[in-house]
Amino acid sequence: MSLFPRLGILTGGGDCPGLNAVIRSVVKSAAKQGWETLGIYGGFEGLLNKEEYDILNYKDMGGLLTMGGTILGSNNKGQFTAKTGLGETGKIPKEILDRAKSTFQQLNLKALVCVGGDGSLSIAQQLFEHGMPVVGIPKTIDNDLQSTAYTFGFDSAVTCATEALDRLHTTAQSHNRVFVLEVMGRHAGWIALHAGVAGGGDVILIPEIPFVYEKVCAKILEREKAGNRSTLVVVAEGAKDPTGTQVTLTSGEVNREDRLGGIGAVVAGEIQKRTGKETRVCVLGHLQRGGGPTTFDRVLCTQFGARAVQLVIQEKFGYMVAFQPPNTTIVKITEAIGQLKTVPPDCDMVQTARALGISFGD
Amino acid sequence: MSLFPRLGILTGGGDCPGLNAVIRSVVKSAAKQGWETLGIYGGFEGLLNKEEYDILNYKDMGGLLTMGGTILGSNNKGQFTAKTGLGETGKIPKEILDRAKSTFQQLNLKALVCVGGDGSLSIAQQLFEHGMPVVGIPKTIDNDLQSTAYTFGFDSAVTCATEALDRLHTTAQSHNRVFVLEVMGRHAGWIALHAGVAGGGDVILIPEIPFVYEKVCAKILEREKAGNRSTLVVVAEGAKDPTGTQVTLTSGEVNREDRLGGIGAVVAGEIQKRTGKETRVCVLGHLQRGGGPTTFDRVLCTQFGARAVQLVIQEKFGYMVAFQPPNTTIVKITEAIGQLKTVPPDCDMVQTARALGISFGD
Amino acid sequence: MSLFPRLGILTGGGDCPGLNAVIRSVVKSAAKQGWETLGIYGGFEGLLNKEEYDILNYKDMGGLLTMGGTILGSNNKGQFTAKTGLGETGKIPKEILDRAKSTFQQLNLKALVCVGGDGSLSIAQQLFEHGMPVVGIPKTIDNDLQSTAYTFGFDSAVTCATEALDRLHTTAQSHNRVFVLEVMGRHAGWIALHAGVAGGGDVILIPEIPFVYEKVCAKILEREKAGNRSTLVVVAEGAKDPTGTQVTLTSGEVNREDRLGGIGAVVAGEIQKRTGKETRVCVLGHLQRGGGPTTFDRVLCTQFGARAVQLVIQEKFGYMVAFQPPNTTIVKITEAIGQLKTVPPDCDMVQTARALGISFGD
Amino acid sequence: MSLFPRLGILTGGGDCPGLNAVIRSVVKSAAKQGWETLGIYGGFEGLLNKEEYDILNYKDMGGLLTMGGTILGSNNKGQFTAKTGLGETGKIPKEILDRAKSTFQQLNLKALVCVGGDGSLSIAQQLFEHGMPVVGIPKTIDNDLQSTAYTFGFDSAVTCATEALDRLHTTAQSHNRVFVLEVMGRHAGWIALHAGVAGGGDVILIPEIPFVYEKVCAKILEREKAGNRSTLVVVAEGAKDPTGTQVTLTSGEVNREDRLGGIGAVVAGEIQKRTGKETRVCVLGHLQRGGGPTTFDRVLCTQFGARAVQLVIQEKFGYMVAFQPPNTTIVKITEAIGQLKTVPPDCDMVQTARALGISFGD
Repeated sequence: MSLFPRLGILTGGGDCPGLNAVIRSVVKSAAKQGWETLGIYGGFEGLLNKEEYDILNYKDMGGLLTMGGTILGSNNKGQFTAKTGLGETGKIPKEILDRAKSTFQQLNLKALVCVGGDGSLSIAQQLFEHGMPVVGIPKTIDNDLQSTAYTFGFDSAVTCATEALDRLHTTAQSHNRVFVLEVMGRHAGWIALHAGVAGGGDVILIPEIPFVYEKVCAKILEREKAGNRSTLVVVAEGAKDPTGTQVTLTSGEVNREDRLGGIGAVVAGEIQKRTGKETRVCVLGHLQRGGGPTTFDRVLCTQFGARAVQLVIQEKFGYMVAFQPPNTTIVKITEAIGQLKTVPPDCDMVQTARALGISFGD
Repeated sequence: MSLFPRLGILTGGGDCPGLNAVIRSVVKSAAKQGWETLGIYGGFEGLLNKEEYDILNYKDMGGLLTMGGTILGSNNKGQFTAKTGLGETGKIPKEILDRAKSTFQQLNLKALVCVGGDGSLSIAQQLFEHGMPVVGIPKTIDNDLQSTAYTFGFDSAVTCATEALDRLHTTAQSHNRVFVLEVMGRHAGWIALHAGVAGGGDVILIPEIPFVYEKVCAKILEREKAGNRSTLVVVAEGAKDPTGTQVTLTSGEVNREDRLGGIGAVVAGEIQKRTGKETRVCVLGHLQRGGGPTTFDRVLCTQFGARAVQLVIQEKFGYMVAFQPPNTTIVKITEAIGQLKTVPPDCDMVQTARALGISFGD
Repeated sequence: MSLFPRLGILTGGGDCPGLNAVIRSVVKSAAKQGWETLGIYGGFEGLLNKEEYDILNYKDMGGLLTMGGTILGSNNKGQFTAKTGLGETGKIPKEILDRAKSTFQQLNLKALVCVGGDGSLSIAQQLFEHGMPVVGIPKTIDNDLQSTAYTFGFDSAVTCATEALDRLHTTAQSHNRVFVLEVMGRHAGWIALHAGVAGGGDVILIPEIPFVYEKVCAKILEREKAGNRSTLVVVAEGAKDPTGTQVTLTSGEVNREDRLGGIGAVVAGEIQKRTGKETRVCVLGHLQRGGGPTTFDRVLCTQFGARAVQLVIQEKFGYMVAFQPPNTTIVKITEAIGQLKTVPPDCDMVQTARALGISFGD
Repeated sequence: MSLFPRLGILTGGGDCPGLNAVIRSVVKSAAKQGWETLGIYGGFEGLLNKEEYDILNYKDMGGLLTMGGTILGSNNKGQFTAKTGLGETGKIPKEILDRAKSTFQQLNLKALVCVGGDGSLSIAQQLFEHGMPVVGIPKTIDNDLQSTAYTFGFDSAVTCATEALDRLHTTAQSHNRVFVLEVMGRHAGWIALHAGVAGGGDVILIPEIPFVYEKVCAKILEREKAGNRSTLVVVAEGAKDPTGTQVTLTSGEVNREDRLGGIGAVVAGEIQKRTGKETRVCVLGHLQRGGGPTTFDRVLCTQFGARAVQLVIQEKFGYMVAFQPPNTTIVKITEAIGQLKTVPPDCDMVQTARALGISFGD
């Protein structure tokens, strides 16, 4: 048994840039307190198997600040059945919670730091209600979590999508084409909105604002008439196709006919058919989750990790760190979960986009 | 005379990434209102010469979103003698204000959008008090302006400094050296603080926290003892050298003996002398002002430009747009100027840094 | 009529990073000789319509060195029916050649600089044989042109693909997945080969080396057994699927069922089915053609442009500039076209890859 | 004692991007042969102390492809007194050679892979002549080694310098300034030449072409007259100041008065004095050595490493791998050392630069 107090840390859900930076910040801040940190592998599933962990040493943190992904691995399936967002948070079977708690106790942990999005934090909350001292750190490239101005990973994902738009810009103009860029965002259109504005998109299609093809195509033809050689359409994967075509694949998944799925291809096909203009599609998929964090995210991750350790010091369990720029703050996990933060159709960013002449296809 | 209402826009002070993105956003948003935009060249000085302007067309905005610098040019000297910050705002001679106003009227402008930092906004405020309808947009890579969570240009400058630290990291380790990176920040240490945290710096020296060499060198030797092959020191150009050596050159300026000046070299020299460890210095200088804006800054600039046009629509003159993430807001220009926003020595970011074991040399 | 000698320049085929840098180099080098340069718009098609051109001034070249795409536009369809590569060079109807020559004469051109790949250079050669003074500059992201060590655009495309692999690396490891990255290369596998080596790919599938799924899957399972959490497969769009599935879509094209096509999805689907491992696909598509040129390509483009003007000075028509590092050289266009430069299965790079344990699925 | 044959590898001289990629390639290629690789720490000095090594495992190579610097550390001082280039290769004392050979034998090494520039390869050659089976890999950011088209590290250093020029471009234009960028190159001007061309420099000053200030300043004033708002001057650290001012500091070194030294500041000071134009200087220094390798360098490093192992297999000792694009080749180490490859004043690249109107100040 360790002579030092011990923290546990795990990363849940889809990975994103900055997870390793958070881990580093927690381990370094804990070490400053004389605490040891145990990394739990494979997300919450690791709690069901008490061999799935390792001591994370201060020295091993070298290089983690800039490295994408998570050295602890992650998992968005498994025996913890809590569902993501939209009110349908599932209840984890008591037997699973008991096993998790038992592992926690056998590892002699003082507290568990859970890094994740809406789904993972829902699990964290149930662990907390089951008597485990838990603190949360909000992660999601989608930025769709309540109670925090930004989640980490978002700025990195937006930057990836913006760089893609920069690239498509020049080739679209050279060939007088329409380009459709499909970005992540099944329920919330933040990535599409921010990347569309930052990358000079002309049309932005998001789940929160239903679009019709007539308006999308009208914008394209209006631009052509005004002498613009190309049009860039940014579409969130959750944007609703008004023709009723059901699109259910996630970016990067392949369907039975070995074709890449998604709304991007549907929208591109329809635009080409309706306008007669050569239209190409690009699906960013997991590129948005990969790679190292931006400077903004590196700072945010480091702040989050340090503050999470402070929460443990103060024994404020059931809380999550949050960002109220330029400072961190804390909120109860229950305030952050259950309802996703979607794009308000009249928010400042949407107004900005409209002011510049960007169409939402509505 | 133009049939359309006309806005004027100028950029003042040292340039930074995002100025062109702001110009584009203003011109596009104004065009949406059916307004014409006149670009005034050479900062406020352009107001003294009514030939120093051009109509900025919607179509000419192509490429400006990503382009660094300002197509309008800038100037931080000249006949508008208002001084930067720290309470010493100078009074502009009435004759100069009269000439500016006369130009404004002859150009038949509806309003003037002034993009700048503390110094430029002080000038803008005096123009406003002299009867000109003025709105402000806060620019400074130093992030030292009151009443806004961030200024644009800051994230880009921090990113530049962070990338430099990433580079120095590997060469420092290969050669078992200490590296000193001098970054901008004459009065406020925000760039050094954020880049230091984001780039894995070990020591951060800023104007707000006086340092002593004993502590800096102790940190270096402590790291060596713990087996770390190198140490990175980030120093803001305004950090106070406790030995009393007067350091007055700005990054990139050369003194009479044709040597590059600055606190970076002083600190590096002293560390080498005291620790006996090979120490190298890198002065980032104008690299921090150059290049295109980050994604974050591109969004912010676009929001600021659109909101500034809205201010003109609402005839709210004497106001400045500001950022209260994730939304823009507005404040009176007088609230933003006169006192720089420096780093509070006990703020969240400093605490984060200390929690990770970063030394401020105090 | 112009008092100065005049060059014409056009860009043909798919666009790629560096076209604008070539244009800039030609215009600047020509200006040094006191020559004017006319840009012909829309590729060779522009020669059929004598209004499709503009004088390119020295001053307008600002910014072109770093800008992706081509300000002259391009076209890979139209009335010049010469086909790309593989021996099937078509013959352009005499009537079309006559019209092109007539435009050339009416524009009073001294020579025509044709920038393009195998297809465009085939057209250029026919124009030359029809009596037009033509010089060629080799462009193709695929690097599949004979007689030059590298074409420009290749290093930029490889860099784009390599950065994608860097990103996929971290997310693949976090989730214990196989990732398939589809890159360009319908007939030659150079991009896949170079990016696969530079990006740490584990399997590289190229048109020149037929693969079987058994070997691909064996590699994946062997890696898993050795404790590697993920496998990266790089597949050129022209890699041959041994199951006989016909794959004919180009990256970014959508088929009638509005699905993205391509070998990448086919390979990913098959791997997932055979190994049971979660497999994701990413199709880079036009991202590889977009964006600015790398440093290497900027230098190469500038060398090529300057040398092409020198060819005109020396009246060496029917020649193409080429690269014999670190110098440029010249070859007859006929030496470069007709047969694509594919990857020799025993070349140095393939041997390097095999030496490191990379599998070609053979 | 190991049951497997063993290679030794060390990295000598100043570090550069790609050293780790070479190490990875050697270790992986050796492992494919069933060989073990021992990393010798601290350059050649590590040979004098038989505890300064570690077994480098295949698995530990993860991440090394993209990581800058060298995990083995390096050293450009010490007891091996061979001097760099310019004919003054020193003779290493026999006692030192004996000790190195003794370590080599005690470690039971089959061969020693020496990665380095002119100086390190001179040492390697003497070890070879002293009876040790040595193969060389050419490393230098300066690209000044004979018998290879490129050394690795060069493309990365040029890219770093080019990106700096991109940044300075926008700020120079905004403020109507002259910027002087000092880059590495004490004896050879390749970095300055390539970066100057790739980054749109207006004046390039290199050791091989003596300059006079009159010509430099004439170019600046000529540009101003033509309406250009700024001028970029790229100067290699070894460029000769015609005024006779002795400049001996290396980039990043500080002199006794704690000022940064170098030709850059001298040139900037002189330009400002002579033209009256505001002139700023930026010294890139070690930024050029830091950071990860470019795609081009990653490929080259991997090729070099694999080929070096092949040399050992073939027992071709005293040879160095070299690059004859697109293939590797081999040359005797003696052919590569002793005389640096400087820029021929009439080479293709210089002609290209002159053709575009770039001045060399001559």
